[in-house]
Amino acid sequence: MRSHGGQRGELALLDRIRARAAQRTAEGKFSARELRLGIGDDCALLRVGPGEELALTTDLAIEGRHFRLGWHTPESIGHRTLARGLSDLAAMGARPVAAFLSLGLPKHLVQNRKVNWIERFFEGFFALASAHQTPLAGGDLAESPIAVADIVLTGAVRRGAALLRSGARPGHRLYVTGALGGSAAALVWLAQWADARPGARAAKQGSEQFQPPRLPVKFQSLLAPHLFPQPRIAQGQWLARHALASAAMDLSDGLSTDLAHLCRESHVAAEVDAAALPVHSSATLEQALHGGEDYELLFTAPPGARLPRRIAGVPVTLIGRIVPPRRGRPAVALCGAQGVRPLAPKGWEHFS
Amino acid sequence: MRSHGGQRGELALLDRIRARAAQRTAEGKFSARELRLGIGDDCALLRVGPGEELALTTDLAIEGRHFRLGWHTPESIGHRTLARGLSDLAAMGARPVAAFLSLGLPKHLVQNRKVNWIERFFEGFFALASAHQTPLAGGDLAESPIAVADIVLTGAVRRGAALLRSGARPGHRLYVTGALGGSAAALVWLAQWADARPGARAAKQGSEQFQPPRLPVKFQSLLAPHLFPQPRIAQGQWLARHALASAAMDLSDGLSTDLAHLCRESHVAAEVDAAALPVHSSATLEQALHGGEDYELLFTAPPGARLPRRIAGVPVTLIGRIVPPRRGRPAVALCGAQGVRPLAPKGWEHFS
Repeated sequence: MRSHGGQRGELALLDRIRARAAQRTAEGKFSARELRLGIGDDCALLRVGPGEELALTTDLAIEGRHFRLGWHTPESIGHRTLARGLSDLAAMGARPVAAFLSLGLPKHLVQNRKVNWIERFFEGFFALASAHQTPLAGGDLAESPIAVADIVLTGAVRRGAALLRSGARPGHRLYVTGALGGSAAALVWLAQWADARPGARAAKQGSEQFQPPRLPVKFQSLLAPHLFPQPRIAQGQWLARHALASAAMDLSDGLSTDLAHLCRESHVAAEVDAAALPVHSSATLEQALHGGEDYELLFTAPPGARLPRRIAGVPVTLIGRIVPPRRGRPAVALCGAQGVRPLAPKGWEHFS
Repeated sequence: MRSHGGQRGELALLDRIRARAAQRTAEGKFSARELRLGIGDDCALLRVGPGEELALTTDLAIEGRHFRLGWHTPESIGHRTLARGLSDLAAMGARPVAAFLSLGLPKHLVQNRKVNWIERFFEGFFALASAHQTPLAGGDLAESPIAVADIVLTGAVRRGAALLRSGARPGHRLYVTGALGGSAAALVWLAQWADARPGARAAKQGSEQFQPPRLPVKFQSLLAPHLFPQPRIAQGQWLARHALASAAMDLSDGLSTDLAHLCRESHVAAEVDAAALPVHSSATLEQALHGGEDYELLFTAPPGARLPRRIAGVPVTLIGRIVPPRRGRPAVALCGAQGVRPLAPKGWEHFS
């Protein structure tokens, strides 16, 4: 963690983060073999094995767009920031090596000791980092009018074994891990709960009286699919190790949008069976199709591939098939009781 | 370059960036040997040689804090974004392998075709990338109320040869490349020019009428030290190859602040000779001491090391020495006609 500036307040904050990152390494949770040099210099230094490649991904999260200070607990924002990056590694079948975090924060979040925002952010961040043996190896810290968090994840994968988006072929089968739509369903409840809680108005205005939300215990499991999504690191590594998947990606923007990306990179089309979809118990079909942020894996496999029902404890479901591309028609179609209809990507568009 | 969203406007923009990045690779400017997989998948894939380590750095730049849309031309913001990351690689003595860019932009910068902001940003970005054989290998794109740019640079350096901040010892000599204070001096003129130009008010308000500045030819060389700083990639690699430097870092926050960081990491103190400083011809001593953003290299070498006067065309100046740390006193002192006085870090502090 590096910063621009050099006096007491910021350095003290950096020291706390650095001490915490170092402590986790010393506890033996992480290997120092791959991370040769972490926080404190101009760059970190990494090594991977001679038969391996380094996978690298970046994900930018912006207040008001990817999270809300009045809705998401600081622990959830820390967790989700890291989860987005880990999920990209999972989609390549890579083993996490190190994370780097660039954090821009408004003054009131850092200066207000009573609020403890940044400590709670790192609680969430480091809890997930520990679960996946991922050291924090560097980053940047700056003051910003709005909160922004850009996460970089590096991982190692055997040369030639990475799961790409581009390998799906007509005739291949389409699978997902876990259940879909749970995050979108939980977000609806989160919004209702957050806007009704005391202090919601101060949170909206970003005022001095701002108190970040604390989640009542009774809501924790209900909201978990949105607040604490689990990246499918073990499942991705399993798929890469067994060389069963012809293409893979993670579901961050919703099945309809992400499957269109996969089809685009593979130059194919796809059909999804509505009745086969593993819709989350609390979600609607629409939420499962377009919701996003489930961070499950979407992958394809040749017809002969024998996939287990579960990988590392998580269910695997056959949801459709890859077909030849059809000129002038949407890449993704939904097959249901009413026949086959085009499934347009309904992920959000930033610049249209 | 990856985005969250999937429809026309954003994909078209991504396609243009991707095509441009691919074209540069195809032109043979960059080697595909190290960058195995670039834009378009969940992660990029990198390889470095068996005797090498991978250096990685991130730098976050935020509108209003690191640049201003009404002051900096889009070309300059693109150049400076990349230069900050390249300068960190230079400070380690690393050879650039690939860059990753996370960009958050307000709608009006992307939607207003007449403004061409994003095309001009990438003009500046790719011009510097070409000069240092650095492919753009991925990133993220999001809509944001303010402009933010987080740059990730990866580089390769021979195992054990990286220039660290932590190797300075009492008795070692202190050097800088190039001249200091030029960026701070140019920033003063930039502010005067920008606030006087037609359209300055619209730029401040971020209105629909916003037109990004275009730099008159007569000001280009005057403002270049601030708008287009040159990262010292060749000089850093020279130092690493010849194993002459005991410690090194880049001057991003100003000599007083950065030298204090170097002392901290090396557990030493330092004395700077005011008369020896290579003050930029347009700058004051204060600007050379505290100005920041010169992106020159600051390094130390044992007394026996024989350094040339120039490295790859850039002057090298002996500016002081490393001394034992003194308990309770500032790490950095300035030696001048009035004797020795403590030199407090005057870099800007974000969270105090």
